[in-house]
Amino acid sequence: MNFRLIAYLVSALVFFLGLSMCLPLIIGLIYNDNGAWPLFLSLAVTSGVGGCVLLWTRGHQNFYLSHRDGMMIVALGWIISGLLATLPYLFSGAIPGFTDAYFESMSGFTTTGASILTNIEILPPSILFWRAQTQWLGGMGIIVLSVAILPFLGIGGMQLYKAETPSPVVDKLTPRISDTAKLLWKIYFFLTVFQILLLLIGGMSLYDSVYHSFTTMPTGGFSPKNASVGNYQSTYIDFVILTFMFLAGINFTMHYKLVRGNVRQFFVNPEFLAYLSIAGLFIFLVFLDVYSTIYPRILDAFRYASFQVVSILTTTGFVTADYEKWPAFSQAILFVCMFLGGMAGSTGGGIKIMRIILMLKHCYLEIFRIIHPHATTMVKLGNVPVSQTIMRSIWGFFLLYMGIFILGVIALAGLGMDMISALSAMATCLGNVGPGLGSIGPMDNFAGVHPAGKWIMIFAMLLGRLEIYTIIVLLMPAFWRK
Amino acid sequence: MNFRLIAYLVSALVFFLGLSMCLPLIIGLIYNDNGAWPLFLSLAVTSGVGGCVLLWTRGHQNFYLSHRDGMMIVALGWIISGLLATLPYLFSGAIPGFTDAYFESMSGFTTTGASILTNIEILPPSILFWRAQTQWLGGMGIIVLSVAILPFLGIGGMQLYKAETPSPVVDKLTPRISDTAKLLWKIYFFLTVFQILLLLIGGMSLYDSVYHSFTTMPTGGFSPKNASVGNYQSTYIDFVILTFMFLAGINFTMHYKLVRGNVRQFFVNPEFLAYLSIAGLFIFLVFLDVYSTIYPRILDAFRYASFQVVSILTTTGFVTADYEKWPAFSQAILFVCMFLGGMAGSTGGGIKIMRIILMLKHCYLEIFRIIHPHATTMVKLGNVPVSQTIMRSIWGFFLLYMGIFILGVIALAGLGMDMISALSAMATCLGNVGPGLGSIGPMDNFAGVHPAGKWIMIFAMLLGRLEIYTIIVLLMPAFWRK
Repeated sequence: MNFRLIAYLVSALVFFLGLSMCLPLIIGLIYNDNGAWPLFLSLAVTSGVGGCVLLWTRGHQNFYLSHRDGMMIVALGWIISGLLATLPYLFSGAIPGFTDAYFESMSGFTTTGASILTNIEILPPSILFWRAQTQWLGGMGIIVLSVAILPFLGIGGMQLYKAETPSPVVDKLTPRISDTAKLLWKIYFFLTVFQILLLLIGGMSLYDSVYHSFTTMPTGGFSPKNASVGNYQSTYIDFVILTFMFLAGINFTMHYKLVRGNVRQFFVNPEFLAYLSIAGLFIFLVFLDVYSTIYPRILDAFRYASFQVVSILTTTGFVTADYEKWPAFSQAILFVCMFLGGMAGSTGGGIKIMRIILMLKHCYLEIFRIIHPHATTMVKLGNVPVSQTIMRSIWGFFLLYMGIFILGVIALAGLGMDMISALSAMATCLGNVGPGLGSIGPMDNFAGVHPAGKWIMIFAMLLGRLEIYTIIVLLMPAFWRK
Repeated sequence: MNFRLIAYLVSALVFFLGLSMCLPLIIGLIYNDNGAWPLFLSLAVTSGVGGCVLLWTRGHQNFYLSHRDGMMIVALGWIISGLLATLPYLFSGAIPGFTDAYFESMSGFTTTGASILTNIEILPPSILFWRAQTQWLGGMGIIVLSVAILPFLGIGGMQLYKAETPSPVVDKLTPRISDTAKLLWKIYFFLTVFQILLLLIGGMSLYDSVYHSFTTMPTGGFSPKNASVGNYQSTYIDFVILTFMFLAGINFTMHYKLVRGNVRQFFVNPEFLAYLSIAGLFIFLVFLDVYSTIYPRILDAFRYASFQVVSILTTTGFVTADYEKWPAFSQAILFVCMFLGGMAGSTGGGIKIMRIILMLKHCYLEIFRIIHPHATTMVKLGNVPVSQTIMRSIWGFFLLYMGIFILGVIALAGLGMDMISALSAMATCLGNVGPGLGSIGPMDNFAGVHPAGKWIMIFAMLLGRLEIYTIIVLLMPAFWRK
């Protein structure tokens, strides 16, 4: 393994992460709150450490990165960013314990949105903003990861979602990846700005607008308010955020193609059509379930049903209604949404619509093959045949996902959590959603979870976010052998 | 499709099913209870209908059965047997409604063991015995199905479990299948008799001994007592039943090979070793969880933990302890057991250990393949390579299993069931276990379930028992096309 280059690239990431603390620092100076000094200190430490390692590891001739190096960079990038992002919380005393601080920062970088904070609103605005920024940065990481790096690493069937990079992808990180990344980040940035403007028009304060936009595009779900988006009681704001959550759940290469004028794709892309249909169907079913039983007014029922379904399906996790008071049918649908997630190549988590479609097609073909045992069949997406290699990778992903889910539920139950809370905690952490059901429901938080449970959830968030394989391989002895 | 031959074979099955009612009829005459006349009537109707169709469809030259014919026979066999087995319940008035009667009889034939009876002990002994007999007959059906018919139909990876029939299996039902069946039934019969003797020695009455043996070997779980096996409060009886449940969860071809003197197989068969290890591990974990917290005595903790784990893992469903009062950790493990099931080729339900092993091996290989992208690898069971066709069939089975589970949970929740009850109801019905958690827990029954919910569960039991594909294909238009 090219440890020198890995250290160089990760320390560059850390260096820039440190510099990015300028933004909350400026906010701290404007608000003149208690967060400015801790942020300055965090900035100095983070950029200092990053800068020193950067200088120490610079000047190498070997720019070759193997698959393994790529995975190390991705995993270390998330884990170390999470570690250093705890500094503002710890220095300011906003979150005193390391476990809680790491939970909050990993929930940020993995764009999960689960929080251990019991009263969000008492935090200094600058420290509070750092939470949103971890999500926004995490979202940037995810876009480049899912559109460029994972396909290149051949992980979990993501090979299907190569961006516009000309194939064949050769066995090293090409400069094209950074080109693609820059382009996608432009779209990400533009959509964020657009959402800020629309929220400002709706009468939201500048701080809150930026905050929510910073946590919508990465489908993160952190909010500066205890009552989340429900705080504003505004149909307009709900609608704007709903729209941008939905946009964030779309594969970012589709946004890119839209910029290039390709509108037709929205009528033919099978994953997009499935995503739209699932969202539509689930909104309709939940609407039928909550109308008159919970909400006497038809518009209220539609508003809350659509917001909550899109929020959970895209794995954002904003809350406008206490869905735990909804009938069991709606809760079951939201629980299923935690597993589905958005489109592959979006910032959404979960299993992803693309994998669900391909697995269902596989099932259909298996049934067909029993009827016609000698027919030769192949799974297709649109008109593109999907190779056996990709299918095998997807099946492996699915079983690992379910297996980790089950092990986690057993472990959490062993720590004294009730079944519903344990089930939803693993679903929500592994799917990078945020809120769950039971003791970690939409009106609760993760503060009361056993410390060991918090570490299980941190691990689950990381596994879910990095498509499981990226972390699991690091635990295999074969990975470390020459 | 060869409808004439299908009708001939199914009506033969029905005819013998009717004749088999002699046994409970004799019991009714001995006990001189209210069940004798209804049973005589049921016998007459069942054998009459079966006999008439038999005569009407006899004398055909075309003995060729296609794959599709095979599936039709299997599906119709279970569905129609279930229908006619309701007659004793309906004629005697023991179960007044058709939905409830069909639920009880399908729970019997699918060897599930879920019951809608609120007070079992008030039923006439003859009618009560009919319940046990449906399970025993269902178990006979399952053995021949899983060891002989499903491998021949190429369903769900069961091809791996061909009995000692010489390959190649040609494209029609050979007389060898009936040879295999007879042999396996002898083992099944012998094990049942052996269990009866051991229970008699333990002081159980003849009736109860036969009853429990008739429901243990098929991993059914019906009991003539409201408190199930817990009624006897006997460590000896618990131990005997536990042993036979465990034996029933073993692939019956292994029993057959044991009769032939092959003991070595128990040390080398990977599925058996996994089955043993899972049972051992789960017993140990549950034991640790309930010892001192629930049972102050070490022996009690071991006795109840081992019985309940083996009962649920083998999908029998006997109850000696109210495991809903156990900590959430034990409940989570029992919940997982509902999905695992016994070995392929046993009478146990669920996903089956063989499929779990192969899927986990697949995952391991996928992780390995990320580290070594150019390595060519293949899943093996023992030293036997498993073909891609079988693996694809298993993956299809797994997703269908999980998909049907989820759809069922949503539907049951829509009928007003709470989440825990809905989750466990689908798990327990699809896995052919019996009791669940919540409102259908070990101390409750299925009487209070919404009628539509009962039909969902009946369908789930049937799907689970016939390895899903056998029923699903019948719903495909392609199946019915020429």
